[in-house]
Amino acid sequence: MRAMLLGRFQPFHLGHARVVEHALEAYEGLVLIIGSATESYTYANPFTGGERHLMIQRTLEDMEARQVSIVSVPDIHRYGVYASHVADLAPPFDVVLSNKELIRYIFEKEGYRVESTPVFKRQTYAGTEVRRRMATGEDWRSLVPDGVAEVVDRIGGAERVKGLYAIERSST
Amino acid sequence: MRAMLLGRFQPFHLGHARVVEHALEAYEGLVLIIGSATESYTYANPFTGGERHLMIQRTLEDMEARQVSIVSVPDIHRYGVYASHVADLAPPFDVVLSNKELIRYIFEKEGYRVESTPVFKRQTYAGTEVRRRMATGEDWRSLVPDGVAEVVDRIGGAERVKGLYAIERSST
Amino acid sequence: MRAMLLGRFQPFHLGHARVVEHALEAYEGLVLIIGSATESYTYANPFTGGERHLMIQRTLEDMEARQVSIVSVPDIHRYGVYASHVADLAPPFDVVLSNKELIRYIFEKEGYRVESTPVFKRQTYAGTEVRRRMATGEDWRSLVPDGVAEVVDRIGGAERVKGLYAIERSST
Amino acid sequence: MRAMLLGRFQPFHLGHARVVEHALEAYEGLVLIIGSATESYTYANPFTGGERHLMIQRTLEDMEARQVSIVSVPDIHRYGVYASHVADLAPPFDVVLSNKELIRYIFEKEGYRVESTPVFKRQTYAGTEVRRRMATGEDWRSLVPDGVAEVVDRIGGAERVKGLYAIERSST
Amino acid sequence: MRAMLLGRFQPFHLGHARVVEHALEAYEGLVLIIGSATESYTYANPFTGGERHLMIQRTLEDMEARQVSIVSVPDIHRYGVYASHVADLAPPFDVVLSNKELIRYIFEKEGYRVESTPVFKRQTYAGTEVRRRMATGEDWRSLVPDGVAEVVDRIGGAERVKGLYAIERSST
Amino acid sequence: MRAMLLGRFQPFHLGHARVVEHALEAYEGLVLIIGSATESYTYANPFTGGERHLMIQRTLEDMEARQVSIVSVPDIHRYGVYASHVADLAPPFDVVLSNKELIRYIFEKEGYRVESTPVFKRQTYAGTEVRRRMATGEDWRSLVPDGVAEVVDRIGGAERVKGLYAIERSST
Repeated sequence: MRAMLLGRFQPFHLGHARVVEHALEAYEGLVLIIGSATESYTYANPFTGGERHLMIQRTLEDMEARQVSIVSVPDIHRYGVYASHVADLAPPFDVVLSNKELIRYIFEKEGYRVESTPVFKRQTYAGTEVRRRMATGEDWRSLVPDGVAEVVDRIGGAERVKGLYAIERSST
Repeated sequence: MRAMLLGRFQPFHLGHARVVEHALEAYEGLVLIIGSATESYTYANPFTGGERHLMIQRTLEDMEARQVSIVSVPDIHRYGVYASHVADLAPPFDVVLSNKELIRYIFEKEGYRVESTPVFKRQTYAGTEVRRRMATGEDWRSLVPDGVAEVVDRIGGAERVKGLYAIERSST
Repeated sequence: MRAMLLGRFQPFHLGHARVVEHALEAYEGLVLIIGSATESYTYANPFTGGERHLMIQRTLEDMEARQVSIVSVPDIHRYGVYASHVADLAPPFDVVLSNKELIRYIFEKEGYRVESTPVFKRQTYAGTEVRRRMATGEDWRSLVPDGVAEVVDRIGGAERVKGLYAIERSST
Repeated sequence: MRAMLLGRFQPFHLGHARVVEHALEAYEGLVLIIGSATESYTYANPFTGGERHLMIQRTLEDMEARQVSIVSVPDIHRYGVYASHVADLAPPFDVVLSNKELIRYIFEKEGYRVESTPVFKRQTYAGTEVRRRMATGEDWRSLVPDGVAEVVDRIGGAERVKGLYAIERSST
Repeated sequence: MRAMLLGRFQPFHLGHARVVEHALEAYEGLVLIIGSATESYTYANPFTGGERHLMIQRTLEDMEARQVSIVSVPDIHRYGVYASHVADLAPPFDVVLSNKELIRYIFEKEGYRVESTPVFKRQTYAGTEVRRRMATGEDWRSLVPDGVAEVVDRIGGAERVKGLYAIERSST
Repeated sequence: MRAMLLGRFQPFHLGHARVVEHALEAYEGLVLIIGSATESYTYANPFTGGERHLMIQRTLEDMEARQVSIVSVPDIHRYGVYASHVADLAPPFDVVLSNKELIRYIFEKEGYRVESTPVFKRQTYAGTEVRRRMATGEDWRSLVPDGVAEVVDRIGGAERVKGLYAIERSST
């Protein structure tokens, strides 16, 4: 059986890496969906789909996690067909790994099995916390895999997040 | 430098595999773009984006070609912004590998270097020929990597192509 | 069990009316999907979604066919998610009535049962024939229910089809 | 003259039913537009277009209100062309029934007559109040027609609204 | 009264210039709509919306035609709402100048007056003829205003058209 | 060198006029982009693209500012390709004039030079202030060029803004 894990990965962090490890132990393969793939350059979604793809690919190489497919999925803005939209773009999967109720609703409606994942320090290992630290200049590197930090550094990602945070705060 | 190769891969065949081998010798890495990712169930585009992703992933595993990113890109129906649309969804690349003049135009316009690729029996190793053989019941397996043939068999792909060909012929 | 019948209904004709009768005998209810709902003012699709809705509603009133839901569905241009798109907009149905192979493929893929419908003089009772007769000034009224003829007359539909045919022929 | 009534009908309630009764007394026919037809699975828009269609159809059958066309209209996200978008998908109408100023603006701009409707206990007979009661487990059945309650029960609608409310509250 | 003239202007030629002159004599002002504004890099639509805007602007400056608004309008792919889409993006106009029946249909439906324009050597002063000459290397400059020729030269437009023609011919 | 200035111009005010004057002194020409061109009939975006085009055109005529191209650009809802989307629809430009950090990010990423503009009483000469005064019935005419005031008066713009403000306040 193959599992599917869906996230925006803004950015991919150590909590995500733990779920990937868990999935690779429990299932034959994993489809990792980068959601909201065409969103970027906002404080909530600072990185492009392509940048996030690269961050994740680097990390999986370091983890030697080969049975993982990375698939970018643009938003379709229709929860009623979202499961079908993902299934159209992704290699086949049997189980959806998610702790989000909405994901559960819209994939169970299409007949998928949905399972919870173990949670690893949810407050710390969270995209919002990583971005908050980037915005304030605190340590964010300890929350992400090395491959992610390397890509973030190369594209000036922390500075971008800081800038986007300032933009958002000033326009309120 | 990293190269980019764009195709619809309906399906991925041995000609594509040769270009991938060439690219991995000549460049540090390769971004493989599955174009027209949301097109499927027509004779010209029989396989879904997800099915094509799986075919390619299997083949790259067999080739032990690890420095390849597979990225699905839906059509945007605007050549004027297509290069930018691809760049938004794909990890960074420097060189575009293509023998198509239109691709050359729209990527050179955005400042990319575009290079031709060696061609390998263009008439035989071609998506149209693979689909034609599937439609007529001739041997198509010798034109595609084993991993592709395996996926096509599992999803009943040759029968689907035969059916889509009949639909198209009858509606003319 | 409830059935679903999908067509463009350009316009709704007596062949369609027969299938509706058949469906209402065999099933508890019928969902009638007006496909390509936002297409209009071409020779292939001369009538707007709203005009087609009205033609069908008049006919169903005359037939006293009350267990029918009329639902307009715009094209989504993705066969891979089309079944899900229809299901999102339509009241629930169990069986798809269709003689088209493509419809069979894309609804069976989502787990629907697809059944053929009896065909009633397919060459004559066909949208293409009705439109051809409108374009050439031949008798088209005998091919459509009275309610449809009445709506076509009120909106100047036959003249519109004649005009659109001339446009198409001149631009070839 | 035919009237048009536009709403999201999340869900259709007794206030809406009163307006329908009023319209059928005052006009020859009614076009009932289900707006935001592709929105679903949010607390503000919990039900799919198809589910809402069914709720309304059941109610109209019970009311023996036959001169009503039900038409689903997806959002076009452009107020400047919205009236034309509705007119393209709906059977013809002459008068728009609405108490909303924005609807008045955008339909009067296109030459439609817009009339107010009698209001029936606006605080109670309101979609927000029905959904609030579903979310909190209070009595919502007394606010909706029997046909609506029946459909909501069959699809587990009240539980869904409760779940969506929890999701929304937790993400604030 | 203000007139509106709609075209794709691929490219703007002397026939168009004559119609503009005619319009400025007969009406107080002119709205010039660049249709299919996001189409480019095909043989039928070689120039981007921005390039066409520049060609027309140069020509109008040379003609000292100041009462003209240039407005780019992307396709909406729905004839049923196209008139409203144009009206939303353009300054107000009263009369539509067109010899195309389809344009007549869809603007008269929305209450506009549609008038024919004088035709000036239709076979020669035509976008298809200008593009054909660019593709074959024949004289095209005599068919377009100087300002257009200047812009075409600066962007390598004739070479582009020649290339796009070759692409199209080879893919048939 | 040609400059580009991007705004929503809801409405165009004297602060904008100053920047245009500045740009015409410093550069050979100016491309003035009307952003969010299809947004209208909200309090934040009360005027249609066509209405804003007319306001600006009137003002430029009064300023005798001839080297200005006015180009309407609909939102594409993807910052990652926005610069390319603008470049596709606009005549060529070299420098982007903007004091907004987000604009700086997304145009510098595509290789454009971005320059700040002199600011002229930012609190007063601001779209939000003009709309606020329209909503409250205070003097807004002194903040906009005469040509803008004339167009606003002709379309009943201040009353519309007042109405939209009331709608927004009541729905909070």
